[in-house]
Amino acid sequence: MSYQLPEGRRLVVVGGVAAGLSAASRARKLDADMQITVLERGPVVSYGACGLPYWIEGQVSDREELLVHSPEFFARERSIQVEINTAVTEIAHGRRRVLLSDGRELPYDRLVLAMGTVARVPEIDGVDAPHVFAAHTWQDFGRLHSFLADRKPATAVVVGAGFVGLEMAEALRMRGLRVTVVEAGAHPLRWHEQWLSQRIRERMGQFQIALHTSHRARQIREGFLDDFPADLVIVAAGIRPATELAQQAGIALARNGAVVVDEHLETSLPGVFAAGDCASTYHRVKQTLDWIPLGTTANKMGLVAGANATGARERFPGVVGTSIVKVCGMAVATTGLSPGAARQVGFDAVAARISARSRPGYFFGEMLEVELVAERRSGRLLGAAVVGDRDVEGRINVVATALGAGMTLDEFQFTDLCYAPPYAPTWDPVLVAARQLRNVREQS
Amino acid sequence: MSYQLPEGRRLVVVGGVAAGLSAASRARKLDADMQITVLERGPVVSYGACGLPYWIEGQVSDREELLVHSPEFFARERSIQVEINTAVTEIAHGRRRVLLSDGRELPYDRLVLAMGTVARVPEIDGVDAPHVFAAHTWQDFGRLHSFLADRKPATAVVVGAGFVGLEMAEALRMRGLRVTVVEAGAHPLRWHEQWLSQRIRERMGQFQIALHTSHRARQIREGFLDDFPADLVIVAAGIRPATELAQQAGIALARNGAVVVDEHLETSLPGVFAAGDCASTYHRVKQTLDWIPLGTTANKMGLVAGANATGARERFPGVVGTSIVKVCGMAVATTGLSPGAARQVGFDAVAARISARSRPGYFFGEMLEVELVAERRSGRLLGAAVVGDRDVEGRINVVATALGAGMTLDEFQFTDLCYAPPYAPTWDPVLVAARQLRNVREQS
Repeated sequence: MSYQLPEGRRLVVVGGVAAGLSAASRARKLDADMQITVLERGPVVSYGACGLPYWIEGQVSDREELLVHSPEFFARERSIQVEINTAVTEIAHGRRRVLLSDGRELPYDRLVLAMGTVARVPEIDGVDAPHVFAAHTWQDFGRLHSFLADRKPATAVVVGAGFVGLEMAEALRMRGLRVTVVEAGAHPLRWHEQWLSQRIRERMGQFQIALHTSHRARQIREGFLDDFPADLVIVAAGIRPATELAQQAGIALARNGAVVVDEHLETSLPGVFAAGDCASTYHRVKQTLDWIPLGTTANKMGLVAGANATGARERFPGVVGTSIVKVCGMAVATTGLSPGAARQVGFDAVAARISARSRPGYFFGEMLEVELVAERRSGRLLGAAVVGDRDVEGRINVVATALGAGMTLDEFQFTDLCYAPPYAPTWDPVLVAARQLRNVREQS
Repeated sequence: MSYQLPEGRRLVVVGGVAAGLSAASRARKLDADMQITVLERGPVVSYGACGLPYWIEGQVSDREELLVHSPEFFARERSIQVEINTAVTEIAHGRRRVLLSDGRELPYDRLVLAMGTVARVPEIDGVDAPHVFAAHTWQDFGRLHSFLADRKPATAVVVGAGFVGLEMAEALRMRGLRVTVVEAGAHPLRWHEQWLSQRIRERMGQFQIALHTSHRARQIREGFLDDFPADLVIVAAGIRPATELAQQAGIALARNGAVVVDEHLETSLPGVFAAGDCASTYHRVKQTLDWIPLGTTANKMGLVAGANATGARERFPGVVGTSIVKVCGMAVATTGLSPGAARQVGFDAVAARISARSRPGYFFGEMLEVELVAERRSGRLLGAAVVGDRDVEGRINVVATALGAGMTLDEFQFTDLCYAPPYAPTWDPVLVAARQLRNVREQS
């Protein structure tokens, strides 16, 4: 028996950051009459969470700059009711109600889940000490910012060498702290190839940040994490989908805890949609559901979930796994699958890596390293990594677009990219990599 | 009766700049034994012709920097014989011979035509005066460079507001000259939309370069072109394919004079290939043969022509018409068809134009303007223009890749582009444009 949209259309959105407000706004755009309520457990909504490390670094001078819109804006401009500091304690889907922390019950006809993630807290002795901070929520960063101002720590250890860990390490180093990063895994970030780990380590070394991989943090005590000096400890050891509510409501979750959604972003409960970091995303290269929480994806998914909550049937095609992060001034961008990851999911992958300038030398072209991955037999592109100080984002985006289109190396190699000495060389580095990979394929 | 590859494989390449040497080098790579000769009418080969305006500007300090490889390099490293200052006067295809200006005859089995272009000389009274220069060949630029150094002209008029005209105007302005540009057409460059012409005019105005469109130059006399002060005149009023030789040999030419080629870059004479600026290129958006002479395309075509001259059957898929040019520090990039051009070739085109930042403001994001064009019914992407001071090339390349893949707006709008505050906003400007165009389509 499928769920029928009732006359009184009430949309409740759980979560008011990227996906939630994107969903609410899109629903309003498509449906002027729907009653739309957004419930946010935190004290602020609609903020650029990814900018918070740069507030610590000093690039963002005032945290308020990261606030995009206020609850009042949503009420006034979009007739969307936004309630902050309001946690949902239960989804009673049988009665189409959410139960709130203040005891209220809110009825809904359609529900969008956009609860985001929570920080994983690793089992480290002393992790609850007052000089230990997560770097996840608006409040986490507020506390950290005050601690830095008040206590002026001289040394820090960052636990975890993912995006946030590396951004925080750089931010603290720029503030003058001595910084050590410890990572339990063998590699920083996600592109687990030796050359890229080496570049990251070298660059961090130039910034006098020590990176210790394959080190599982054990103990935090006054002034130290294990043997590393630490007046301050940042725990950035990963996140997980905030999906307890969904689970309790009987909504199907993937093994990684993310809400399972179909291409319309509908969950296993009809009329209930999920978007953003709490939801699964289809990985177009792997061709399976995956979980890659990122702000830009959250915004896109929000649009689709919001539209479909009004009765549309839009489709979210998924992601190819594109990301970029600044590591001590160096851009590290990846999309699709690394050679190792491709093999792990069963592709017979070939890869080539080249160095080439982003522009002619006389226009200060940057030396870029590009690794390109393809399936041996079909030549289908599977992924790329691009590393350099500048001019990286455009190159990874070209490969991301090609991955989205399912292009093969033969199709990709003659892509008509722009050329003029102030902006690009005759052969763009990504095409140099494509030609090199074509040689590798032919010779293998 | 089709042409059979004889035992003695002799390849002659006519033209030694981008396409010609790319063809010769590729042929050598695939065939170690072929006898390969490159004939170049000019005094140098293998140079970055597009860098010459920047030598005038001063960005390139020594013209020799633009020389990639010498004839000796090709002889020594690739066993390719390169003859400079050697013009071909006739192709005697019946006897498989080219006749040279010095009276010699050179036999061939396969021929690659890569003669490039010649500058059009408009009918202007006084165009032969010694202070009038083309800006096309190595020699043109040499003469101009000497004139600037010796005569120190204070004023200049540039005839033609195409790529080279605008680059030369900026180069001369940067050297301190008072510069006027006159253009016979109603718009500069190729994207004939009022807003873009306006941006170009404004920017040139800021650099104190006057742009007079719809002005057909009539007379050059001492110190003036028409009423504009001109101690120096640059004629950059277009180019045409250098295809007299091909025509005399009975090779089919398009109405625009470019050699007609098939997808293997073979001409109407079997065994004779053409590549680069003298040849037609398939336009993947228009889906017809076109003529868009550009250095990067010439290099790509050279690879295919060179391979096929050795007996391979590689395919050149064509271009989508991507270009970028610096106009007084502003990057103007286009790909595919403008709204007007799309309608002219029969598309029911819709367009949207937006302004958006390339990165968050706190990372000095550049304000970009993006115009995106699609077919109304199918939503198929047809073209884009991107304008801004920085961060333009990556955006146009994303659309160029999407055009090459034949993507529709629905497919394109969720392209998984990279996001992180130092490099890109949550919604990349090209995706903002896609969403806006989607609204335009729905409402039209």
